[in-house]
Order: sequence, then structure tokens, then C-alpha cells
Amino acid sequence: MQELGRHFIFELYGCNAKALDDLEGIREAMLKGAVEAGATVVGEVFHRFSPQGVTGVVIIAESHFSVHTWPEYGYAAMDLFTCSSATEPGRAFSRIEAFLKPKSSTAMEVKRGMFTEGRA
Amino acid sequence: MQELGRHFIFELYGCNAKALDDLEGIREAMLKGAVEAGATVVGEVFHRFSPQGVTGVVIIAESHFSVHTWPEYGYAAMDLFTCSSATEPGRAFSRIEAFLKPKSSTAMEVKRGMFTEGRA
Repeated sequence: MQELGRHFIFELYGCNAKALDDLEGIREAMLKGAVEAGATVVGEVFHRFSPQGVTGVVIIAESHFSVHTWPEYGYAAMDLFTCSSATEPGRAFSRIEAFLKPKSSTAMEVKRGMFTEGRA
Repeated sequence: MQELGRHFIFELYGCNAKALDDLEGIREAMLKGAVEAGATVVGEVFHRFSPQGVTGVVIIAESHFSVHTWPEYGYAAMDLFTCSSATEPGRAFSRIEAFLKPKSSTAMEVKRGMFTEGRA
């Protein structure tokens, strides 16, 4: 079996509440993290919600990199979906971790677009 | 246990190759699908790759809705991440399905931001 994409799902708990609500800080960490992971940025959308919370999506040539935050729960959901075997998701995570400072986190990889050998 | 978000992961195989490369058609289906699912659109990014393939991300007040396509494999990866219990992901899927016409598809739900009762 061979996959077309790798989708990394990160859960970040116990983050710094102020950082979770800081759109500019999250934007900077995501753009730097994407580049450090070896991705090519082709677009971005960032949005701050009222009364709190930030959504950031960086469109990369390899697919997407997103973060959604819940400052009231100290939680952030981070996804990195890449079709390139050269992408290093740990580097993007490290950049976000350094900014949001979670007390605990989990990572999961979901293989996307699975074909049997010879079809992909 | 209670979750902050529901993340639906759809895999679409055997899609119409021409539709998979049609940025405007995908954009229209995604924007309509988001609204039909009960989501509120707050931003969007669409990108067509060379020689083929489309990435579309619709930022919704409830989180995000993304599609990535591989026309050469007849495959599309679709994600709908929502923090609202009122969102009906099947409606967004139906709209995309009507446009891409997959021969087979799968759906998976991942609960994001799980807290024990009393904490969320």
C-alpha cells in the first residue's frame, strides 16, 4: 500500500491562554514553521474570533497547515497535511510548541489516499 | 468525555478527472456545501497547481473545510472540522460528491479537544 498524503493531527493542551488569542504571534509561528518543515507557502487566511480564539490556515504547495485555538480551554488543534515525503512535520510542531507552550500534546498520523501497489 | 470539535475526514476515489482539476467548479461546490452544512464562511483560499490538482480551503466560523485533489489518481481528500454541534457534514459531502462523482468514498470522524466532564 502506498499513500498520496500524510496527515498529521496534533492536540495541544494546557497552552498559554494569551498566546492562543494572539493572531499575529500565531501567524508568525505558522509561517516560520511551514518554511522550517520544508513546505512552500502559497496562501494564508487568519481570523480572530470574538470574544476569543484564532483560526489560521496556511495553504502550502504540499496541501495545508492549520491551527484553531480555544483560549478558554487552553487548547489548540493543529493539522499538517502534506503530499511530500520531504516535509518534516516535527519542525512545524516545534515552532508552534515554542509559541503556545502546551503542558501536554499528542500526535497522530493518518495516511490519505491509500492505493495498492501499482496504482499509486 | 466531551469534545470541542468534530473533524470529519472523507476519502473520495474514482472521481471525475476533469472535475478534480476544475478550480471554479470545486470553489462553487465547497462554498455552497459549507452553507448547506450550516457553516458560516469567513474566508477562502483556492489554488490550482501545475500541471494539475486543486487545493481549496474555506475558513468557517466553526473551523475549516478543505479539499485537495489528485486528478491523475482520481482522488480527493476532503476535511470538515467544526466546533458546532449544529453542523451537518453530510450536506457538504453531498454537494462535493455531486460535483466530483466518486465511485467510492469513506468517512471517518475524529473528536478533537477531548476533556473529561467538568473541564469542557
